[in-house]
Amino acid sequence: MSSNSFGKLFTVTTFGESHGPAIGCVVDGCPPGLALAAEDFAADLARRATGRSRHTSQRREADEVEILSGVYEGRSTGTPIALLIRNVDARPKDYAELADTFRPGHADYTYWQKYGIRDPRGGGRSSARETTMRVAAAVIAKKWLAERHGVRVRGHLAQLGELVPRAFDPGAVEANPFFWPDAAMVPELEAYMDALRKAGDSVGARVTVVAEGVPPGWGEPVYGKLDAELAAALMGINAVKGVEIGAGFAAVAQRGSTHRDEIAPDGFLSNHAGGILGGISTGQPIVASIALKPTSSILRPGRSVNLRGEPVEVATKGRHDPCVGIRATPIAEAMVALVLMDQALRHRAQCGDVGPVAPRIP
Amino acid sequence: MSSNSFGKLFTVTTFGESHGPAIGCVVDGCPPGLALAAEDFAADLARRATGRSRHTSQRREADEVEILSGVYEGRSTGTPIALLIRNVDARPKDYAELADTFRPGHADYTYWQKYGIRDPRGGGRSSARETTMRVAAAVIAKKWLAERHGVRVRGHLAQLGELVPRAFDPGAVEANPFFWPDAAMVPELEAYMDALRKAGDSVGARVTVVAEGVPPGWGEPVYGKLDAELAAALMGINAVKGVEIGAGFAAVAQRGSTHRDEIAPDGFLSNHAGGILGGISTGQPIVASIALKPTSSILRPGRSVNLRGEPVEVATKGRHDPCVGIRATPIAEAMVALVLMDQALRHRAQCGDVGPVAPRIP
Amino acid sequence: MSSNSFGKLFTVTTFGESHGPAIGCVVDGCPPGLALAAEDFAADLARRATGRSRHTSQRREADEVEILSGVYEGRSTGTPIALLIRNVDARPKDYAELADTFRPGHADYTYWQKYGIRDPRGGGRSSARETTMRVAAAVIAKKWLAERHGVRVRGHLAQLGELVPRAFDPGAVEANPFFWPDAAMVPELEAYMDALRKAGDSVGARVTVVAEGVPPGWGEPVYGKLDAELAAALMGINAVKGVEIGAGFAAVAQRGSTHRDEIAPDGFLSNHAGGILGGISTGQPIVASIALKPTSSILRPGRSVNLRGEPVEVATKGRHDPCVGIRATPIAEAMVALVLMDQALRHRAQCGDVGPVAPRIP
Amino acid sequence: MSSNSFGKLFTVTTFGESHGPAIGCVVDGCPPGLALAAEDFAADLARRATGRSRHTSQRREADEVEILSGVYEGRSTGTPIALLIRNVDARPKDYAELADTFRPGHADYTYWQKYGIRDPRGGGRSSARETTMRVAAAVIAKKWLAERHGVRVRGHLAQLGELVPRAFDPGAVEANPFFWPDAAMVPELEAYMDALRKAGDSVGARVTVVAEGVPPGWGEPVYGKLDAELAAALMGINAVKGVEIGAGFAAVAQRGSTHRDEIAPDGFLSNHAGGILGGISTGQPIVASIALKPTSSILRPGRSVNLRGEPVEVATKGRHDPCVGIRATPIAEAMVALVLMDQALRHRAQCGDVGPVAPRIP
Repeated sequence: MSSNSFGKLFTVTTFGESHGPAIGCVVDGCPPGLALAAEDFAADLARRATGRSRHTSQRREADEVEILSGVYEGRSTGTPIALLIRNVDARPKDYAELADTFRPGHADYTYWQKYGIRDPRGGGRSSARETTMRVAAAVIAKKWLAERHGVRVRGHLAQLGELVPRAFDPGAVEANPFFWPDAAMVPELEAYMDALRKAGDSVGARVTVVAEGVPPGWGEPVYGKLDAELAAALMGINAVKGVEIGAGFAAVAQRGSTHRDEIAPDGFLSNHAGGILGGISTGQPIVASIALKPTSSILRPGRSVNLRGEPVEVATKGRHDPCVGIRATPIAEAMVALVLMDQALRHRAQCGDVGPVAPRIP
Repeated sequence: MSSNSFGKLFTVTTFGESHGPAIGCVVDGCPPGLALAAEDFAADLARRATGRSRHTSQRREADEVEILSGVYEGRSTGTPIALLIRNVDARPKDYAELADTFRPGHADYTYWQKYGIRDPRGGGRSSARETTMRVAAAVIAKKWLAERHGVRVRGHLAQLGELVPRAFDPGAVEANPFFWPDAAMVPELEAYMDALRKAGDSVGARVTVVAEGVPPGWGEPVYGKLDAELAAALMGINAVKGVEIGAGFAAVAQRGSTHRDEIAPDGFLSNHAGGILGGISTGQPIVASIALKPTSSILRPGRSVNLRGEPVEVATKGRHDPCVGIRATPIAEAMVALVLMDQALRHRAQCGDVGPVAPRIP
Repeated sequence: MSSNSFGKLFTVTTFGESHGPAIGCVVDGCPPGLALAAEDFAADLARRATGRSRHTSQRREADEVEILSGVYEGRSTGTPIALLIRNVDARPKDYAELADTFRPGHADYTYWQKYGIRDPRGGGRSSARETTMRVAAAVIAKKWLAERHGVRVRGHLAQLGELVPRAFDPGAVEANPFFWPDAAMVPELEAYMDALRKAGDSVGARVTVVAEGVPPGWGEPVYGKLDAELAAALMGINAVKGVEIGAGFAAVAQRGSTHRDEIAPDGFLSNHAGGILGGISTGQPIVASIALKPTSSILRPGRSVNLRGEPVEVATKGRHDPCVGIRATPIAEAMVALVLMDQALRHRAQCGDVGPVAPRIP
Repeated sequence: MSSNSFGKLFTVTTFGESHGPAIGCVVDGCPPGLALAAEDFAADLARRATGRSRHTSQRREADEVEILSGVYEGRSTGTPIALLIRNVDARPKDYAELADTFRPGHADYTYWQKYGIRDPRGGGRSSARETTMRVAAAVIAKKWLAERHGVRVRGHLAQLGELVPRAFDPGAVEANPFFWPDAAMVPELEAYMDALRKAGDSVGARVTVVAEGVPPGWGEPVYGKLDAELAAALMGINAVKGVEIGAGFAAVAQRGSTHRDEIAPDGFLSNHAGGILGGISTGQPIVASIALKPTSSILRPGRSVNLRGEPVEVATKGRHDPCVGIRATPIAEAMVALVLMDQALRHRAQCGDVGPVAPRIP
């Protein structure tokens, strides 16, 4: 198998290389009757797009989505929805000299070892370009989740290198190119990024996604737990090295008397669990965080080997993000939305549309 | 669907509740010809078993595995291998009073909201008792991985509450009941646990698993990445709240010039990646860590509600671990082994048994 | 993979060899709240059991089902339901001499070529003994389909060798050991079978299954069509060589003006389609027929080869059915029920519990 | 779920409606290194294409395949191969008047009942247009099967209405527009078809596919049997109402002493099994036959109802085949090839590339 599909009942299959003719996806399992148009994809693709500010890669991606199937007179029909984006700013020649070299920190070596062949143009299939289609597919999921269940999925940057927000203002997140919840710190972030670029280096980041409005009962014991599927979805984003649900690694040093979220008749008294118990949603906000590594494509030269095992020096002169974590915010949202959509359908397959029989904790 | 199966080509389906008549599993997809006997399961099940020391739950689990199928004259035949363990020390009456109550930090409420019915005896299906079968199934995977590829999967406790090892001696890990790699600290750990028990409280832990000998090329882009599948497998263990691969969350504050693992002709110069690039193994050791929350079943009373939404006070008097993280060590190993086994078969499905065509980095 | 699971959302995983310690299954995905007890399985297992009359194999199978999990206080909980039957009348020694030989018409040679090892005791995993668990699992599906949707699945023998029923009386089917719908012909069938046994030979059969009450809308285009999944389910029964839906092979010589089922406001005017159009149920009865080959285990000696490629003569003296098709009736019902159950859950996953928006054809 | 994917390890996902902007597919799991170019698809697509002779639909389909991904410098890379065909001869207006009507024998009514919405243009997703992508995907499978294993898959028309071939000449099949193995009968077939067209009617057909060179050992007990998967694949082709393996329904009246294929040291003495025993290939030719119903789209008016349940008369004036079975020949080949490809990869996942350990029957 080759695992280019995500989701069991709301299944997204993506295809395409960074500098091939096109990227695209097929979304299978969408409920019928959902209003959908090409314009619906513009906002989230723009949020993900590079070239948005001088702090992210300067590749210009038009990212115009064409709906090839599955929509009739503006409504989903229940048949597969295929989306296509032509690669218009592909510059394969930028990468010609790298065809022979394994860039450190990249998938060059591993693809070669796995397949004995690789498309070296811009990382080929391993490029973050592929995540464009995750964001596109998630637009469909977000629409259905919002309309049917009132679910809202929002991400923000929670750390950039050593910098952490000193305030949290949800309204600030979409008003700056860093998805940063503390507007006052934006100049500081810009200076930080400029210094980084000048040094020819890059830095990691932490992104947090919160899903509000998820009803209790989504998630499947014991190998399809909501947190386990979120972990896979988020760890599968390029450059992610860690995933936390709720308290995450802070739980290691916590006491049980602190961590367990006590319950009063009018609601949970805390949310260290991040909205999930036993792999099933509690009705509290779902909270997930990820660690993104600093991009390996930097100006500072690094040691590596070529196809013949000889030592070479690698320095990346192409268009790259000094912090890939920034762009990861809408991608992380997308993956959370795809997981929730899939679990929503799985839940109603087994348990039906009917609501819970026991009183809900508010 | 209900998601009680794990793995796509080496598929483990588990069943059974904590205090039902039995727990068991069906292992489908095992290559034929593997030597296998009931005795093979004893060692790892003993490592996982409660009752091993006074620092873990006092439930006595005999955990005698019966092989019901798939083995003929001591060899796997390629047909499904069913394993069965009778629950001999089930004490359902211990839990009678809890049938009406949602214990804070447990899956009681979420199972109820999902299904409208739950088995309250010892947590039913949500109990860590289920992980016994993961360990059993992984014995088969470990054997095949070791015999066929020389892969060795070993875990240890990397943090207990605030305590971290001051030394790392692989030989120490199996010589103390904490899987602790620093023998000199064991008395300190015992005192720490005794104080915790006296306080009627519990604490979290961090477990690290290392898989050595994994060849380059295992893992599937882009939704079946080795790290993504490890993340799901590990996050799906009871009480896990975070997963890291390699540098994990430390990567957030790292520079690209540090994090990217440079390569010399005689090998990688570091392993911040944790042995995985682009979702595919590099040939370096696979390193994964998990955060386990403190168990919620503690003597100290906590606030909750009952089935009718009325406030109640919950205090657990049954047999429970003050640190579930300790026992999680062999379980985490098991999940890593199951993921590797599955990926090994998936790799040869697409790419065959033949080795890499390019020179390998040593 | 090894494919011992059936169904995507109502998933049945079976295990066990004909003469191993036990056979069993795990049913995953059952909706919660279904009443279920060990007694529920008795009727259909008795219908399937050998030893029912002198016209089927004389092996005595007690077939007492033990429910190991997934049921609490008489109701399904939504967790996996494991069923176990111990093999009490296994006589492995009957088969010792066959371990070296490939019986013609059996799976001996193919298992050996696939796996390089096989369990020769009674055909091991390839024995029809495995179908016991299909029938058991289908008891659960039949209950839910009947209670929730009023679906009723019934099979009958439609041909035995050259004999075809001259009348069709639904009430007769369960009143004779042949599932034959024409009571007057039963003595003729008995004489036919006696002659066959005396000749040391066997004969094929045709079984037809009808599912009534299936609502329109079940089945998934384009690779999960209801008829395609019925075809797989039925062709996967031991000894089946052909599957027909509705008119089946008679459609080859039909005209379109005859075959297409015209529609009047008060209903379809015929059912050549067998209740399925475009892979989706129409609301008419689902009609499927299968061809079963004559059993290859007969007294009359046949030519074959042994493990060393040398010619041998094979004659079966064990307990075997001269017409396996008779026992296939409840098995075919079971497979149809399992397909319908799975499709029912798949339909509500994508389209919800809400009924059709257009007027239904009565 | 929605089931627009076929195959577990060699997975084909198709999308597109008959008169939408495009049809396409994503082929995931192709082994790396296979030579592949757009020209490879021309021959089989032409064989399937309508407009080939006056005896099939007059729709002109250019069917130019664009490879969007997964191929680099003429070789498959192991990443998903996306294929796209623009619909250039779509005439949606031909179908405007049918949007309100359920055509008898078509999927109009069932799609409406399932989804509450449907694309009426040319049958939308239920059109045989979708099978174009099956044929395209199978080109890849056929290449790999031929190069790696010497497998050759060939189909022919085995019956047209009442007509059956009086001779079998493999060389004749590709030399006439009917895939008919008896060249002398071609004028008779042409007259038969002309009479049918004049009568405004249609007729069914029987197609047989033979796969030669399949090694013993492919196919998975017990729910992924080779014959079961062939049955699903073939029954899932539009208009198919029956599937036979080997002797098929003729087995009903056979004796066991005839049907079982005896074995001599130099080979099997017959092939009633159609090359499959116990769901696993024997090494003999795989033989499968299908029954195709007469197309329901005919000039002769038929009774039906409209969306409001009112009686209407339907007569099809668009471009349609009087015998869809003719074009089904390459489609049936394609499905057989896709099943074999998938099983080849599944076999080596579990059992490796190494050949059988026992002597093979020649």
